[in-house]
Amino acid sequence: MPELRKDPIIGRWVIISTDRAKRPTDFVRDRITNKGGFCPFCYGNEAKTPPEVLAYRPGQNGNQSLRDTPGWTVRVVPNKFPALGIEGNLNRQAEGMFDKMNGLGAHEVIIETPDHNATLEQMPEKRIEDVLWAFRDRILDLKQDKRFKYILIFKNHGESAGASLEHSHAQLIALPILPKHVLEELEGAKQYYIYKERCVFCDIVRQELDNGLRVVAENDEMLTVAPFAPRFPFETWILPKRHESGFENSSSRVYESLAKAIKTLLQKADLVLDNPAYNLVLHTSPLQEAQNDHYHWHIEFMPKLTKTAGFEWGTGFYINPTPPEEAARFLREANVEMPAMATR
Amino acid sequence: MPELRKDPIIGRWVIISTDRAKRPTDFVRDRITNKGGFCPFCYGNEAKTPPEVLAYRPGQNGNQSLRDTPGWTVRVVPNKFPALGIEGNLNRQAEGMFDKMNGLGAHEVIIETPDHNATLEQMPEKRIEDVLWAFRDRILDLKQDKRFKYILIFKNHGESAGASLEHSHAQLIALPILPKHVLEELEGAKQYYIYKERCVFCDIVRQELDNGLRVVAENDEMLTVAPFAPRFPFETWILPKRHESGFENSSSRVYESLAKAIKTLLQKADLVLDNPAYNLVLHTSPLQEAQNDHYHWHIEFMPKLTKTAGFEWGTGFYINPTPPEEAARFLREANVEMPAMATR
Repeated sequence: MPELRKDPIIGRWVIISTDRAKRPTDFVRDRITNKGGFCPFCYGNEAKTPPEVLAYRPGQNGNQSLRDTPGWTVRVVPNKFPALGIEGNLNRQAEGMFDKMNGLGAHEVIIETPDHNATLEQMPEKRIEDVLWAFRDRILDLKQDKRFKYILIFKNHGESAGASLEHSHAQLIALPILPKHVLEELEGAKQYYIYKERCVFCDIVRQELDNGLRVVAENDEMLTVAPFAPRFPFETWILPKRHESGFENSSSRVYESLAKAIKTLLQKADLVLDNPAYNLVLHTSPLQEAQNDHYHWHIEFMPKLTKTAGFEWGTGFYINPTPPEEAARFLREANVEMPAMATR
Repeated sequence: MPELRKDPIIGRWVIISTDRAKRPTDFVRDRITNKGGFCPFCYGNEAKTPPEVLAYRPGQNGNQSLRDTPGWTVRVVPNKFPALGIEGNLNRQAEGMFDKMNGLGAHEVIIETPDHNATLEQMPEKRIEDVLWAFRDRILDLKQDKRFKYILIFKNHGESAGASLEHSHAQLIALPILPKHVLEELEGAKQYYIYKERCVFCDIVRQELDNGLRVVAENDEMLTVAPFAPRFPFETWILPKRHESGFENSSSRVYESLAKAIKTLLQKADLVLDNPAYNLVLHTSPLQEAQNDHYHWHIEFMPKLTKTAGFEWGTGFYINPTPPEEAARFLREANVEMPAMATR
């Protein structure tokens, strides 16, 4: 069983993932392993993953393909090498002055497409929207398990962003604790609300739309913007224009707009930054307080352009060589509406 | 002038380093550039750096070599491309709902050796100790400038850890604000002290020495240990056994022991992890509260073995595949006291 351990100084929980324990020589192997080779996410290899927990299969009235066979458009399976175990209870314990508990949780993979070579931004908007519906369906299902406090959904694209399989996919981790950064964001938003009686994210949406300096794109429901104090060059956020604390409570219009916004942003990033590796992270409310006035779900996009990882990790101190106004201008002006692009 | 900007949600300050603004195409160049070529840190090239602010030159009574000429063992110069500017004042301002101030600070480079090919761990203990004395001397000098609140000293070794020049060096950044992670560590340590009336780091030293599970090495004054809840595989801390909040207040015995401890740890890491890239970060008290009972300076060592940067950055959530007890055992058992090693 993996273990959750708490740092006694700053209170951060980390997963010590004993089940996939790594010896020193294992790290060199930590790269994309299936280039051109066998892929467990492709049609016909469904038996090579754990049984699916969700799949969208076109057709109706028994007309669809069978579980764990080809014919799906999006497929969600438990991670074969999960960072957390789904069975058992937390069993909180001390080890002298330290605190730990069992590494209980869910770790799933959302296979975004059966096409091994498609990237998310090349998929039709409707297919990207399906991926968002899969996120929602999994959140609603896992939310019923009261052991879980938070669901983290993210996508690592490209080897240098941490992807270990090249077939396009996202990941979901359900956690019995709130990650430190999530807690800080929630607390910060709550303090702002207490002081101003307004949502800080709603204020950001308003101010950025007003002055336009950091706007990358917008559509009916979503604003894509470079944040005022970005940690990384070309860090970009996608926020719903209307207040909504939990991703899973959004309307279908919002998912439709979000699919468009993601496609546009990724296409722009491909043009401006030459197909960068990137991380996409969904920030949403904790499961048991999904509706509130102070938090506002959004997506953070971080292209992997610099290498100064460890130092920033170690200090929480970021030096960003690209002003967000300039990053936003480059992305805003990148024209992805050309006919050649529209046919992708 | 670079700008310091504050994230309105979680209150983290970042430097937007406008003076070295990067356009999209600049990022591919972000790597070690002087392999085998010209090196501004070598003897004879002193004029290619800004004038030195400190240098140790053997000899006495006018017998030493001249400023900005060869003959030094350790040399400290302002960074030629500083992330922060030394002149002016903070000029705190609002930009609508956002907060910013001038990016005021010092950014210096500590050139650890005149030997282009020496790594820190290959240097004699006495030379490593000199580097530590240079850290102290620069802290004591910069501390007189009351605009500065914190001094960050760190070393990036290897391209994947963010080094952009291969000649062995460390960096110093004096800041007008406390970085978020530093603030959290200080606050966490203070809360522990208020509750227990003991320093949390002193408690860690005691418990780790007692059970030995995570001990990597120890000597007269220092303990080298894998932390209980490490974020990264083989993350290792070096702590003084006796309480001391500010690095610059330590005795010469402590610097002597620390030089030995650093050499031993880096040699062990080279053996076990095959010469990894790494970051070393000094964690010490803020300048104006250098002596207190709750904080305890230490050094954090983070080898760069995994690539999952952006996601962890974005969430504050860490999955560590190597239990610290195993990492400590590998490092503890690596024998660097062999005659072959001693002659390095």
